[in-house]
Amino acid sequence: MTTQYFEDYVIGAERKTHGRTITETDFVVHAGHSGDFFPHHMDEEFARTTPFGRRIAHGTMIFTIGVGLTASVINPVAFTYGYDRMRFVKPVFIGDTIHTRLTIVEKTEDPKRPNAGRVVERGQVVNQNGETVLAFDHILMVERRTPAAG
Amino acid sequence: MTTQYFEDYVIGAERKTHGRTITETDFVVHAGHSGDFFPHHMDEEFARTTPFGRRIAHGTMIFTIGVGLTASVINPVAFTYGYDRMRFVKPVFIGDTIHTRLTIVEKTEDPKRPNAGRVVERGQVVNQNGETVLAFDHILMVERRTPAAG
Amino acid sequence: MTTQYFEDYVIGAERKTHGRTITETDFVVHAGHSGDFFPHHMDEEFARTTPFGRRIAHGTMIFTIGVGLTASVINPVAFTYGYDRMRFVKPVFIGDTIHTRLTIVEKTEDPKRPNAGRVVERGQVVNQNGETVLAFDHILMVERRTPAAG
Amino acid sequence: MTTQYFEDYVIGAERKTHGRTITETDFVVHAGHSGDFFPHHMDEEFARTTPFGRRIAHGTMIFTIGVGLTASVINPVAFTYGYDRMRFVKPVFIGDTIHTRLTIVEKTEDPKRPNAGRVVERGQVVNQNGETVLAFDHILMVERRTPAAG
Amino acid sequence: MTTQYFEDYVIGAERKTHGRTITETDFVVHAGHSGDFFPHHMDEEFARTTPFGRRIAHGTMIFTIGVGLTASVINPVAFTYGYDRMRFVKPVFIGDTIHTRLTIVEKTEDPKRPNAGRVVERGQVVNQNGETVLAFDHILMVERRTPAAG
Amino acid sequence: MTTQYFEDYVIGAERKTHGRTITETDFVVHAGHSGDFFPHHMDEEFARTTPFGRRIAHGTMIFTIGVGLTASVINPVAFTYGYDRMRFVKPVFIGDTIHTRLTIVEKTEDPKRPNAGRVVERGQVVNQNGETVLAFDHILMVERRTPAAG
Repeated sequence: MTTQYFEDYVIGAERKTHGRTITETDFVVHAGHSGDFFPHHMDEEFARTTPFGRRIAHGTMIFTIGVGLTASVINPVAFTYGYDRMRFVKPVFIGDTIHTRLTIVEKTEDPKRPNAGRVVERGQVVNQNGETVLAFDHILMVERRTPAAG
Repeated sequence: MTTQYFEDYVIGAERKTHGRTITETDFVVHAGHSGDFFPHHMDEEFARTTPFGRRIAHGTMIFTIGVGLTASVINPVAFTYGYDRMRFVKPVFIGDTIHTRLTIVEKTEDPKRPNAGRVVERGQVVNQNGETVLAFDHILMVERRTPAAG
Repeated sequence: MTTQYFEDYVIGAERKTHGRTITETDFVVHAGHSGDFFPHHMDEEFARTTPFGRRIAHGTMIFTIGVGLTASVINPVAFTYGYDRMRFVKPVFIGDTIHTRLTIVEKTEDPKRPNAGRVVERGQVVNQNGETVLAFDHILMVERRTPAAG
Repeated sequence: MTTQYFEDYVIGAERKTHGRTITETDFVVHAGHSGDFFPHHMDEEFARTTPFGRRIAHGTMIFTIGVGLTASVINPVAFTYGYDRMRFVKPVFIGDTIHTRLTIVEKTEDPKRPNAGRVVERGQVVNQNGETVLAFDHILMVERRTPAAG
Repeated sequence: MTTQYFEDYVIGAERKTHGRTITETDFVVHAGHSGDFFPHHMDEEFARTTPFGRRIAHGTMIFTIGVGLTASVINPVAFTYGYDRMRFVKPVFIGDTIHTRLTIVEKTEDPKRPNAGRVVERGQVVNQNGETVLAFDHILMVERRTPAAG
Repeated sequence: MTTQYFEDYVIGAERKTHGRTITETDFVVHAGHSGDFFPHHMDEEFARTTPFGRRIAHGTMIFTIGVGLTASVINPVAFTYGYDRMRFVKPVFIGDTIHTRLTIVEKTEDPKRPNAGRVVERGQVVNQNGETVLAFDHILMVERRTPAAG
């Protein structure tokens, strides 16, 4: 665990995760986990008749794996409040390799909570061609080292 | 498949999914699928020392299963554009049973696309006590039956 | 849920499910779920020496997925009594895409149960070439809307 | 592999498999594998309102695991033709332990195939209380050591 | 179960298991089971830049499956004490087919335990080209039929 | 990735991983992954008749998860040569929580390889009661920053 207080977050700070190849197995596991067996994800014959010409990944999977890739460092004084502006920019296909880029884009004090602040981390899930496939804003509530002045 | 055009969406229309009990298995499957083995989800001894007193579900899992529960009807003229205002309101524990409620809350024409419009479906993932655990706005792009007047 | 009483079943009524591509993942998951690791399903080198020339799907998997594909509508007044005449007509290979066709073929009153009747639903699991790979008769016990005359 | 020709099968011969405890994990895996997320199997709150009072196993799972338990000996001169009279006699609950008993009950020559015969193996899947939960007749086609007289 | 006492083990006795093709699914399942998502196993783009030029199997997976292949016969009077000299001799790639060869190489009495002895079973996990990919010495403690003389 | 050359390893250096609760799901996943469905791991009724009184974890699973817990830092100049003295000291039960402790215990130059050395990392997998359940010596080959003098 690496404690990082609200004051320690720096606008513009970036980190980039390892990559992970999205396999047919991930498609099948995600269908079974979510219960979503829509033919866009699971029926190669049907998928050939769509504009993409092949199966496309579930959006919830790219979000799950894209966020999961970032789960390497625990900050015990932060927790996830939510996500904003999640956009599925491009489809992900079997065999694509994705990684996630995180950038701190916003810090705001919370008038109602002198002991914590809001940090926005912009996430971009990027494929092997450098194209962003998913973007999102991750909203964290982070404890302050010293309470904000009232 | 049930074709539903932009014009067919009615503000205030609701639907409610079946329920699903979130099991310890789902926790383990989600960790293995996402790669997120943080002790909040996976280490019962550690979890006992936290305010919640036990393991809590991954946010990405509640999103995945909450959305997955809605995947019973395919609308071939709609696709997911993204999600806004996703908020993790309450934790989900092993043994909780969740279902999802969807309400159409917004329809907007898109000046740049005469053939489609934007529909916002509000999702609420609700536990066995009637408490919302996750809320989100699902943004759909839906084809129009007849193009919007220019 | 859609309540359908014994009286509501119509001989000759048909429905057809979505399709699903059978993947190598499904083979591995089914072996791990069933405990059947016979080399016909799991050893590509061995399978090359057999008449089929490649791994073939477990029969229990084609039954499980073939029936699973039909699980989209719950009839709360029916339950499965059993299956008859299950026949593995052709092998299924990795990459095949199957769907299931159901036809109501028989309705019989049950002299011992005035409140229910027996419905037989013929199932055919069909591959991408239109060939039936598995056939079975699904026997349902279905409540009557009004008890049969004694 | 243990070669056993048609002539080697003995009516009345029995074998009994190891046991396996059916876990909540198996329920979740089977739902994800089959795509059947019906609340009878997956929603503990709903299941409490049914006559059984708790989640019941998918029929296709008890068949899959019941047959899978028998997959310990390969007979290279036999193959599965189909199943008859599959009957779900009693429900299986989380925590039940099942094993399978197989008995050779029938051998018939096939007038059209002098080189093989039909063997029927009766299967009974039995729980920890000695109750049969699933019964089926497994039909095998088995090569003859010596062709039948014409 | 087949009871085999210390006295029954014969130096030089060998057995060979069935084969199993190692699939991309196994890679993904093992990562999710172990929590090891290192890019050598999971990122095809990265793997192409390494000397092997493609993803290589986790060592713990080859050990798990290599040993698992031997789990066909239970000896109720033996238990695993440990393993020595486990060596990862060659990498295993997606699509390789492995089997395991076991040879009894050593039997030693245990001065402190008159009722049991130590048996060493050498394991070799071998690929489709006849190359050993993993070797290990499996140390068993096995009951004696008759206690050793003091 | 954190490059650590042979010269950088310090005898006595320790690290301790996060913890992970071993669940019934892990038992079922491991059986399905390894193909080992022995009743000691899978049959609660049988397990009650053994000295342990309940199901015990597969040794290969404790090794896999125990090693997997350490997979948080990649050293690109080291690779696993093998393992020695792996000993299953105590059984692991469903619900136990384990973590792994690693200690550098040995560094040896390799007369045949001036550019690398051998490092032994002692692993101890420890349960919630502080008891070692598995011990092993992990042998690494690590590149030298500067070649050893000839």
